[in-house]
Order: sequence, then C-alpha cells, then structure tokens
Amino acid sequence: MASQVAKRVLVVAGLGNGSGTGASTARLFANSGYSVALIARGADTVDKIAEEINKSGGHAVAFPVASYSDEDITTVWKSIHTKFPKPEYAIRAAVFNASHGVWKPFLEVTPQDVQDCLQTSVAAAFSFSRGAILAFKENDIEQPNGKRGALIFTGATASLRGNVVTSAFAAGKFGTRALSQSLAKEFGKENIHVAHSIIDGGILTERSQSTRSPEWQANADVRLSPESIAASYLYLVNQDRSAWTWELDLRPAHEKW
Amino acid sequence: MASQVAKRVLVVAGLGNGSGTGASTARLFANSGYSVALIARGADTVDKIAEEINKSGGHAVAFPVASYSDEDITTVWKSIHTKFPKPEYAIRAAVFNASHGVWKPFLEVTPQDVQDCLQTSVAAAFSFSRGAILAFKENDIEQPNGKRGALIFTGATASLRGNVVTSAFAAGKFGTRALSQSLAKEFGKENIHVAHSIIDGGILTERSQSTRSPEWQANADVRLSPESIAASYLYLVNQDRSAWTWELDLRPAHEKW
Amino acid sequence: MASQVAKRVLVVAGLGNGSGTGASTARLFANSGYSVALIARGADTVDKIAEEINKSGGHAVAFPVASYSDEDITTVWKSIHTKFPKPEYAIRAAVFNASHGVWKPFLEVTPQDVQDCLQTSVAAAFSFSRGAILAFKENDIEQPNGKRGALIFTGATASLRGNVVTSAFAAGKFGTRALSQSLAKEFGKENIHVAHSIIDGGILTERSQSTRSPEWQANADVRLSPESIAASYLYLVNQDRSAWTWELDLRPAHEKW
Amino acid sequence: MASQVAKRVLVVAGLGNGSGTGASTARLFANSGYSVALIARGADTVDKIAEEINKSGGHAVAFPVASYSDEDITTVWKSIHTKFPKPEYAIRAAVFNASHGVWKPFLEVTPQDVQDCLQTSVAAAFSFSRGAILAFKENDIEQPNGKRGALIFTGATASLRGNVVTSAFAAGKFGTRALSQSLAKEFGKENIHVAHSIIDGGILTERSQSTRSPEWQANADVRLSPESIAASYLYLVNQDRSAWTWELDLRPAHEKW
Repeated sequence: MASQVAKRVLVVAGLGNGSGTGASTARLFANSGYSVALIARGADTVDKIAEEINKSGGHAVAFPVASYSDEDITTVWKSIHTKFPKPEYAIRAAVFNASHGVWKPFLEVTPQDVQDCLQTSVAAAFSFSRGAILAFKENDIEQPNGKRGALIFTGATASLRGNVVTSAFAAGKFGTRALSQSLAKEFGKENIHVAHSIIDGGILTERSQSTRSPEWQANADVRLSPESIAASYLYLVNQDRSAWTWELDLRPAHEKW
Repeated sequence: MASQVAKRVLVVAGLGNGSGTGASTARLFANSGYSVALIARGADTVDKIAEEINKSGGHAVAFPVASYSDEDITTVWKSIHTKFPKPEYAIRAAVFNASHGVWKPFLEVTPQDVQDCLQTSVAAAFSFSRGAILAFKENDIEQPNGKRGALIFTGATASLRGNVVTSAFAAGKFGTRALSQSLAKEFGKENIHVAHSIIDGGILTERSQSTRSPEWQANADVRLSPESIAASYLYLVNQDRSAWTWELDLRPAHEKW
Repeated sequence: MASQVAKRVLVVAGLGNGSGTGASTARLFANSGYSVALIARGADTVDKIAEEINKSGGHAVAFPVASYSDEDITTVWKSIHTKFPKPEYAIRAAVFNASHGVWKPFLEVTPQDVQDCLQTSVAAAFSFSRGAILAFKENDIEQPNGKRGALIFTGATASLRGNVVTSAFAAGKFGTRALSQSLAKEFGKENIHVAHSIIDGGILTERSQSTRSPEWQANADVRLSPESIAASYLYLVNQDRSAWTWELDLRPAHEKW
Repeated sequence: MASQVAKRVLVVAGLGNGSGTGASTARLFANSGYSVALIARGADTVDKIAEEINKSGGHAVAFPVASYSDEDITTVWKSIHTKFPKPEYAIRAAVFNASHGVWKPFLEVTPQDVQDCLQTSVAAAFSFSRGAILAFKENDIEQPNGKRGALIFTGATASLRGNVVTSAFAAGKFGTRALSQSLAKEFGKENIHVAHSIIDGGILTERSQSTRSPEWQANADVRLSPESIAASYLYLVNQDRSAWTWELDLRPAHEKW
C-alpha cells in the first residue's frame, strides 16, 4: 500500500487590501503546491484572493475573522484544522503579516492607537503563533529541510528603531520581533523554524500606488515588490535544518539607510 | 522682589514591594532636594515609602492607583499637579519603573499574561509619558543642565533579547524601549531628556532576598543594588544638554554576559 | 549577428583546507553555470578544488596568492581579468570568506595575532572589495535581478559580540561587518549588492571532523553544512533589485543562542 | 605608623590638538585629585597640557610617543610605572581616546588609510589595553567602588554603523568596540571595569571651531562639550561594583539621530 504524502498547507494572517505581502505570499505558495488558508479581518479581501487563487488552479480557503482577538484567532485555527484535516493535509508554514499602522507625533497618539498597535502586532501575534506552533508539533520532521514547520513574521524599519512619529507603531513592531526571537530559540530545538523579516522601505501596493508617483511605482530600484518579499519567505521555509535564518533585512537597491 | 526658585519634583511610577529600584530612586532624589510623587498600585507600599521619606526629613506624597489603565494614570497626573502646583513646584524628573513579569514556556503563556505585560510595560508607559512630557513642556529650560525635564525608563536584559521563557515579558520590554527611543528623538529638540537603562542582572530586593542565598545577597559583585541604579538615574537627570545619554547598561562586576 | 551573453564569473577568496564555505560556494556556483576564480594562500587547496570542479564538468581557475597583502590581492585581480576577459566573461559575484582565527585569553594575544586578524579580516577585505567593486562597475545591469554584481562577506558570531577569548578575532570580524555595511550603502545606488552573513554555529569541515564527535558530524540539527551556507549565498546573489538583504544569520536548528 | 593611601593615577592616550575629549578628561581628573600621565604622538600637545595642569596646581607628566606601535606603547607604559611607582601611586584609570579619522568614498580609500585606521583604533588599543590591564591587576580592590581599575574607550557613531564615507574609519571603530566588549566580559570577574562611549555628534574643539559657525559653537544644544564627555568618564570610573556600565551613548540635546 502506497503511503500518501500529506498536502502542505500555508496559513497567512494579514492581507491588507489584497495587493501586498500577505496576498503575494499566498499566491506564490499556492503556485508552489501549497494549499492556502487565508485569514484577514472582513470577508471581502480573503474571498477575493481565495477566488483568484482557486480560479488559477490553486487551492485556497478564506477564513475571515471579525477581529484579531485571541478568541477569534483561536476559533479560526480550529476551522482551519477542520478544513485541512490530517492525514490528507499538514500545516507546514505560517506567515503573520498583520499590522496596525499609526504614524503620529507622540502627543497625538491616543490610548486607542496604542491598544490597536499592541493588539494587532503583539497580542494577535501571540494567538496566531500558538495556533501555528501547536499545528507544527503534530507534524513529523520533513526531509530534506528538517522541519516540522516554519513560522515567519513580517517586520519593518520600526522593528529596530523608534522614531519621531512611530512611537505606537514601533512599540508594537518591537514586540513582534521579541516574540519571534523567543520562539526561534524555544522551538528550534523541536525543529520548528521561526524567522523575522525587516522590510526596510516602501512596498508597492494598491495603496502606495494611489499616493506615490508613477516613477516611483515603475522603478523597482526604489520600492519593494511584494512578490520579492514572498520569494524570500519561500526561501526561508525551504532552508534546511543545518542553516536557518532568524532575521534578514530586505530593501530596494537604491534605498538610503 | 526676589524671584523664588520652584522646588523640583520627581514622579516615580512602579515601586514593587518598596525595596527595589523605584523606592531607592525616590529616597535618593528626596535626599537630593526633590519633592517626590509616588505612584503604585495599591496604597500599602506608597504610603509606607512616603511616610519613611517624610519622617527622615524629605518630602513625599503617595498617589496610589487602582490600576495602570490610561484613565487612572491620567487622573493621577492631575492629582500630582494639584498637590505640587506651579510656581512653587516644577516637575523636573519622571521615572517609569513599572513592570509585569512573566517567565513561562511559550505554550503556558495565557492571553491574560500577554495583556498584562503589554498593559504595564507599554500602554501604561505611554500614559505615564504623556503626563510627564506635558508637565515638562510647561517648564522653562533649567541651567546648567539645559533641560525642561528628564524621563527615565527602567529596562532589562529582556529589553534587548527575547529568550525561551521571556516571550511575553520581552514583548513588553521591547515595546518600552521603542517608546523611549521615539520620545528621545522627538523631544530632545524641546530640551526634554529621555533615557532608558538596561538592568542586566539580578537586583537585591526583599523579594530576591527571600529566594537567593545569603552569599549572593552579601556579594555586591554579583547582584545590583537598587541604590546604585538610583545613582545612575540621578546622574542621567543631571547630564548637561551637550551630552545626553539615551541608553546605558548596568550589571554587577562579575556578571556573565 | 546574435549578441553573445557573457559567461558569469564568481570570484571566491578564502578556501581554508578546501572543505568549508568557500569551497562549497565555488562548487555550487560552478554547478549553477558560473566560471569560478579561486583565491587562497598557497597553491595546494586552490589547485585541488579547481581540478575537482573542472573534472566534474565545471570551469574553475586557481589563483594562489603568497599573502593577503594589498599588493598580492591587487595583482591577483589583474590576473583574473586576464583569464576571464570581457566580453566573453562578466564578473558577477564575489565572496570574501578569508579569516584568521585567534581564540585566546586577552593577555595571551600577541601583537602579531592582532595584526594577522586585522590584515586578513579587514585590510584584505578592503583590497578584495576594491577589486570586486571595480569589476562590477564595468558590468551592465543584469535582468531580472537588477544587479551589476553581488559581493558577500562571511561573518561569524564574533561579528556581533566580543567575548572572553575572542578579542582579536572579534576585532577583525566587527571590522569586516563595518566595511560590508558601508559598501552596501554606498554601492546599492549603483546596483551593486553587498551582503553579510552571520554564521552562528560550528561548520562541518574536515577540520571540525577531526575534533568533533561522530554524533555531532552526523547530526545536521547541530552543525552547519557548508553546502547550506553556499545555498544562502546563491539565494542572495539571485535576489532581485526590489528586495535585497544586507545581513542574515544562519545557525543549526538546535543551536542554543 | 599610618598607612599611606596611594595616589590615584589616570593614564590618557590620544589628545588630538589638546582641545578635545582627551585633554578635558585629563584636566577633570587632575582637578579631582588624580595624577595624570599623558600619552600622545609628538611632544607639543602633551607638554602644553602637562604644563597647564601643573601650573594650575595639578600633577601631570607628559609621555610623548613617536608612534602608536606596540613597541612604543609598551615602552611608554614602562616609563609610566617608573614615574608613578608603587606604593606611592596606583594606576586606577585609563582612557583610550586615540583615533585616526578617514572620511572618503570607498574607492578613494588607500591601503595606507586602512592601515592607519586599524593601527590607531585597534592595534594601538590592544597595546594600550594590555598595559592598563596589567597595571590594574597589581592593584587591590578599592572601596567603595569595588574596582582594581577602570578602562574607558572613546567611540563614535561609526562604532555602530558603517556609512558611505566611513568604511575605513568605521572598520577601526567597530574593532575598538569589539575589544572593549571582550575585555569587559573577561576582566569584570577580576573587578576591572571596562566601558565604551558612543559619541554621537560633533564635539566642540579648536578644530571644529575653525570650521563651524559661531552659532554652532555657542549652542550647547547642538554640539558636545569635551568637558561633558569627561564628566561622563569620571562618572563611569566612580560607578560601584554592583552596577557597571559597559556602554553609553552621548549626544547633544537637539541632535537628529
């Protein structure tokens, strides 16, 4: 009797308006043979991207959530396990890409701004990570990469440096980074790979397209393509057990830094 | 008519059980001529330390809070301004020393643990900082140190590194550090000095005395004295405008790091 | 008349005894279609690896040097240009992997130890970089990766932290890292990609095989394979212009850090 | 018979033109009761500062060196021991402030520039540190600060970040920092305190006075006073054994960073 290899599943949380890092990661992994579970607030974006992936021959399921509360994230992980049951499926990769952006002088930052940054960048990251780690622990160690699973966090310049309008945003992103380092150290021993990217520049998304010049959009030397970020995530997931990266930075060729 | 120099006030938040960094800072600044406003959760510790300082010839007022919520902290700053009115008083220094410690393997960390760490180390730090910055902005620039005021945050090893049992604690402490750096950059231009200490070792407190060996307690080479940390805070507050420190580390002579 | 695409050339400096990162990088790039120029002190290792690559269908040329002096490195770059003339060839990648290891208590470190570390890790890195940057500046920008060329430096744990027996070694490795960051910032604008890896663990080489247990050697969870490091270098070289990495860390899954 | 307390000696290397950090440190420590040994290249500056200190009631001895070679530095330490013999004197503090500045685009940096930066910032720092550590090891542990001695290195922005015109300078300053961290870890256990400052801004010296505007010179919010840096060094030397700082940054209040 032939043993059946489980289909690999990627879980992505945080899709913005569907034109950025989360969506590109979903598309690239779908093209690379993964089934994809899409988590985002509200049904519009997840439904759109799931439909797009499914129409183009991939396999995606939308998991809209009402909020990034621990309860909602815990519930959605249960739904993901139901939709992608073992042994047909194995959840092998998870990307936490959710973020709440606040760029304001400190005295204009409201207590709610602070809560929103902390809830999305830190508390939701904890809830999502718990789901991912528990899912990975059920997996065998895959060859040749030597992993039960890989969990990647999307960071930013503000993950490394607080600055004059980033007090709230940086407080959240520093927190995500701390979490990712703790997890990398704790779960590496169990062959679970945790990584963190520092996106150090503007990303070409529908949103940036509406505010930036056509020259900026057209010039890949000055802004990040979400497809290129996604390619780095696929690379990280495929790194073999002897040489795992916790953190890498990514910026356009001409970025001043 | 002689112009009267306003009496300098230090505001300290976070006193633990009254034997650590916050209390030592209050005592040292009181001995150095500051009036001291003491903020902590619950009346027991603040009342005890205020009484002790007042009995020994200093001037301290207790400001117990029910919680470190934004509402409670905002309210307490109003009370402080009432008790220490201008022009008799000028709030010149503020120390944020509150912390919520959680040391657990990641899968034992509860959503409440995460919320507690974020609320105390980050959200309350924002609320406290708002009060301090607003108070300092009302001050003239003092000579010779060139400051309207100085705001100091107490950090830890976990401010710089996430580790296997510190996911929640480090997420909070990273966030405090991000805030302190943002504030230092934004308000230096207004002659408000913001600093952050990295306490990289165990501190001799009543709590550590109950769990550590007498040898450890007696050996100043292996543990931090809260009085020594307080001395570094007084040094930071007195640094003149031409050479301000944002961050310094503090550890015992024999610490392995 | 059809325009001929130039054959891509990799230049590697630092091959140890031929069983580590430099040699693996040479082999992997040769297998990926690069001609390879091999620089190392003494003819034995470079000749052996060149022969091995050429026998297995690749293309490698040995460039032994008497020393890592500026004069010798400058001379060897001239020889490389002669052996790999334009327009048949284009030097597209360069890896600086040379290192002089000293692990001693500080008071046992001799002035010569210091000079050796500085000469190999820093001064030779400057000389090698000059050759690489000048070679890359002659290239057009290649598609799709948007590069004239890529220069990668091999770092170590000691690139980020000085420790009790690494004063001399770390002084050199910190210096290499400083150089790589300066170059990344200065030449990114000219579409030259400069990267730095942090190898944070023991590498499986012939040398480590002679001193480590068979269990250690056999367990890819606890030591780095030079092939895996080489794979990360090929990934870096192929990153497209919109998302370049300056620095990534690499360590085995089970490494304690 | 009364036991005589040894007179404390500070050794400073690197005095520039006598108007900067090294000279201010010498003056401040002389005013604080230290005898001062002054090391610099060439007799002019050391003689001038020694004379100035001696005229104003302090005690300084000039130790000019022909170069910062290991041989010259080793020889000068012998002279210092001869001039400040035990038990009358005890060498308790040492400041390494020498630096060779090169600010050039990378392709203009010469091999000699690289050698000069490495020789002064790293190799000479090793030689100087050996002399200091060996001198301190002969001391008893002083009370109340718990030290045999303190060794301080002057760093710069370029100690932490390479930038477009600082490849050579940063390579040297990164190296000094690595050394200081290694020493701090190795010799803390022997009650020798090693610290490193990050001077993150322009310093008011005779040289900067000739090139900067009178407004800049007059405004202590925008440039560092060497006296303020010296004050931080005296603070570090006096820190007690329970809370030592390895690294602190220093910048003017209005510095953008």
